[in-house]
Amino acid sequence: MSQRNKIDLNSDVGESFGIYKVGLDEEVIPLISSVNIACGFHAGGPAMMKRAISLAKENGVGVGAHPGFPDLIGFGRRNMDVTLDEVKEDVTYQVGALQAFAFVQGLRLQHVKPHGALYNMAVQNAEVWDAIAEALAGLDRDLILVVLAGPNRSKLEAIATRHSIRIAFEFFADRAYNPDGSLVSRREAGAVLHNSEDVAERVVKMVIQGVVAAKDESKIRLEADTICVHGDNPEAVAMVKNIRESLIDSGIEVVPMGTFL
Amino acid sequence: MSQRNKIDLNSDVGESFGIYKVGLDEEVIPLISSVNIACGFHAGGPAMMKRAISLAKENGVGVGAHPGFPDLIGFGRRNMDVTLDEVKEDVTYQVGALQAFAFVQGLRLQHVKPHGALYNMAVQNAEVWDAIAEALAGLDRDLILVVLAGPNRSKLEAIATRHSIRIAFEFFADRAYNPDGSLVSRREAGAVLHNSEDVAERVVKMVIQGVVAAKDESKIRLEADTICVHGDNPEAVAMVKNIRESLIDSGIEVVPMGTFL
Amino acid sequence: MSQRNKIDLNSDVGESFGIYKVGLDEEVIPLISSVNIACGFHAGGPAMMKRAISLAKENGVGVGAHPGFPDLIGFGRRNMDVTLDEVKEDVTYQVGALQAFAFVQGLRLQHVKPHGALYNMAVQNAEVWDAIAEALAGLDRDLILVVLAGPNRSKLEAIATRHSIRIAFEFFADRAYNPDGSLVSRREAGAVLHNSEDVAERVVKMVIQGVVAAKDESKIRLEADTICVHGDNPEAVAMVKNIRESLIDSGIEVVPMGTFL
Amino acid sequence: MSQRNKIDLNSDVGESFGIYKVGLDEEVIPLISSVNIACGFHAGGPAMMKRAISLAKENGVGVGAHPGFPDLIGFGRRNMDVTLDEVKEDVTYQVGALQAFAFVQGLRLQHVKPHGALYNMAVQNAEVWDAIAEALAGLDRDLILVVLAGPNRSKLEAIATRHSIRIAFEFFADRAYNPDGSLVSRREAGAVLHNSEDVAERVVKMVIQGVVAAKDESKIRLEADTICVHGDNPEAVAMVKNIRESLIDSGIEVVPMGTFL
Repeated sequence: MSQRNKIDLNSDVGESFGIYKVGLDEEVIPLISSVNIACGFHAGGPAMMKRAISLAKENGVGVGAHPGFPDLIGFGRRNMDVTLDEVKEDVTYQVGALQAFAFVQGLRLQHVKPHGALYNMAVQNAEVWDAIAEALAGLDRDLILVVLAGPNRSKLEAIATRHSIRIAFEFFADRAYNPDGSLVSRREAGAVLHNSEDVAERVVKMVIQGVVAAKDESKIRLEADTICVHGDNPEAVAMVKNIRESLIDSGIEVVPMGTFL
Repeated sequence: MSQRNKIDLNSDVGESFGIYKVGLDEEVIPLISSVNIACGFHAGGPAMMKRAISLAKENGVGVGAHPGFPDLIGFGRRNMDVTLDEVKEDVTYQVGALQAFAFVQGLRLQHVKPHGALYNMAVQNAEVWDAIAEALAGLDRDLILVVLAGPNRSKLEAIATRHSIRIAFEFFADRAYNPDGSLVSRREAGAVLHNSEDVAERVVKMVIQGVVAAKDESKIRLEADTICVHGDNPEAVAMVKNIRESLIDSGIEVVPMGTFL
Repeated sequence: MSQRNKIDLNSDVGESFGIYKVGLDEEVIPLISSVNIACGFHAGGPAMMKRAISLAKENGVGVGAHPGFPDLIGFGRRNMDVTLDEVKEDVTYQVGALQAFAFVQGLRLQHVKPHGALYNMAVQNAEVWDAIAEALAGLDRDLILVVLAGPNRSKLEAIATRHSIRIAFEFFADRAYNPDGSLVSRREAGAVLHNSEDVAERVVKMVIQGVVAAKDESKIRLEADTICVHGDNPEAVAMVKNIRESLIDSGIEVVPMGTFL
Repeated sequence: MSQRNKIDLNSDVGESFGIYKVGLDEEVIPLISSVNIACGFHAGGPAMMKRAISLAKENGVGVGAHPGFPDLIGFGRRNMDVTLDEVKEDVTYQVGALQAFAFVQGLRLQHVKPHGALYNMAVQNAEVWDAIAEALAGLDRDLILVVLAGPNRSKLEAIATRHSIRIAFEFFADRAYNPDGSLVSRREAGAVLHNSEDVAERVVKMVIQGVVAAKDESKIRLEADTICVHGDNPEAVAMVKNIRESLIDSGIEVVPMGTFL
């Protein structure tokens, strides 16, 4: 596929809870173009959602919901054997709550990206993507669903078409890929990349050439609209800065996914 | 105020939780004109909200949110020393979640009535009403806030005016009143009326004459737009039926508050 | 194994939550010999635990903990991808909390039976039984772990031996069995038996002959120490009554598992 | 009262939750003599309790439970209008759960100190202290209840006598006191002291002379058995180090309250 000149950078934010603080939201948001805001089931909550929306508004980034499983102590990272109806209902509830906070501040949600185990279960079972897409279609057909770029591209595009919503394919900046385009499991060594320079370089290459080096050095064709980055700690933020600058230096604009999808 | 020929009957619904069932929603909803749907903090939840919206739609009643304190095990009945910001945020979250379920089914919320301890704290401290009103004004100026009819009428009207929202004054069909127009505390004997005939009669009298007999038999002037009834058990439903029929027999229409406020 | 003249009947109790009532605890407890008390993660809670212990004490039944997944809205029925450490910790926490309520009333726990999805996951993966057994061994080596009677008998006995605890094999009175001794999945037709007479008859046969008719009418050898019954509704209680009377009529004593294991 | 040569230093620990980390437990525990471990209602949880018990064991400090209100998002800091029965039940549950983790590691609880709003409500209303004392007496008469040193000394001693438990009077190292011996509300300026040297000095003075300077510089007689310190951040830990060293330099031993009460 042809070279692209625009890309979105997304990061999870608003994941603090009560007195518990996580994430350098104030530092990472100015560096990215879209935020995924936790909605109270796996993290976050009313006060945190309000604040995250404020920060997003100040920085002019695209605002998205980051719904997860109702598992606070497990941070939504544990697979739960939920029904597809429960997926739809839980997503509707969480996205609806965030829509309210966005509306109060004059914003409208741009996208939805499921969190943690919900995302992983969708990657394993496209029926979960379908359920989420159906929930989004019911709420706002302008909502973009963020999905994993990789092997199931056509199946995911079919889901989007069926529900008349847009999807954004996502690339994980710091995750190793298998030759089939899937993510290397976090349980394997080398699943997460730590070298900021290397990460920035592969991101630029992916954006410009649509190519990523897999774990075995084979080349994978991979096209993505948005790149997942992190703001958990100073090193993560430094990595985002590096990615952003490398993209801009290569003539690529970092802009919210909603502006070009 | 002059005699009125329209009144709303409201009842709390959607208060089941997971496998736990409470309330004869299917039986009481056809008898009333507005429902207050629990939003997951003190009771209810995504599946229950979806189902309550369905039932409300089938029966053509006005749909309202019934936000409460985040206290499932206490059913939102325990006062919590929350801040006014927390009130606003928790109400925004819960109403937003319900707005989403209503929207999916083609409905729009008519009103908001706080639940249990949140309602009681508002009755004790008008700043809480003000915070809730502010939350509603941010979400949808067509939302009606249900408040207790009684001593603070002008103060409550001022709050509504300040936030450019409507309020509905509420009368409790089965609760005894003090001579000052406040509710007799549930801790006192005789706080709750159980005779269905008497209850129906006083409701009709209140609607037509704007007068209620207080606990000491003194007469209180009390004008209300909506009457709170219950669907917890067969006796409660029978009482609602009696109230409804007595109203209709007296030439009073039972219609959603949003149609006449 | 030879004919037995003693058996235990166990039922889940204390599964109410806040205002939500489930289970006819008062009616079923006098008919059985051991209770499994919910511990607040999937159902129950401090007040319910205290009350269930009281009821158990009044009726002289064996008291057990019924720990489950931290999933109130799902009633602990949804598999969760927890670690074995989490299993041990969650079981320790819940059993410890119930031990406290038992101690206050002068009782000591007899057994532990995991609830719902936790039980099912243990049946699928013996490492979960092992983790639960390890938790019990740390707390009180006199605690009996209730496990599913069936195909893995020797493996389960090895776990008990390794941790120096006792196990009780459990038979489900109203569940159909596969020819290999496993339970017919609830998703299949005929998984749950409803005819009270038939159920009582097969229970007696299982106890006296150690034989159960599988779904396909083949005979399975199955020895159990305790029989799971239910007190959810009047029909269930009537079934328990029938089972109890049939056992007694056949010369079998219904006594807490701790008295004969 | 005469000069004392032993004092306890207590700090809240184990208040992390899931992925959320708070408190420098590893750093503060070696400096103190007793820990108050959160029990999962306002903070903490099974994994955190197990870890806190381990750390306490390694450092040979006295282990206590720190039960709070069931209000995770509010960190147990919001007053809740609970009944005295609920206080007893919630304390029994939480202390029981922690007793289990202690038992598994060969330890026994030394004390119980209620958290946040529960502590504050007890200070306002001695019936809450009484309910907590009753819960402790039911579980283990060797448990020490930590209460606020100050105006109600004889009333608190009567509660302890009535329930045959011991109490430890607590002094807050970094909190300003009113002339009547009560704490200056956190809403007032100057409620919290930040100068590490001054704090250490007043602690030593309180221990040796039984005297504290109130906010208005008047002298209050105040005898305490244990001093509340904090491990939230590096400055807090430095303050604890200072307090500890000043005490030792003054010939005072820092030892668990259970060794001298």
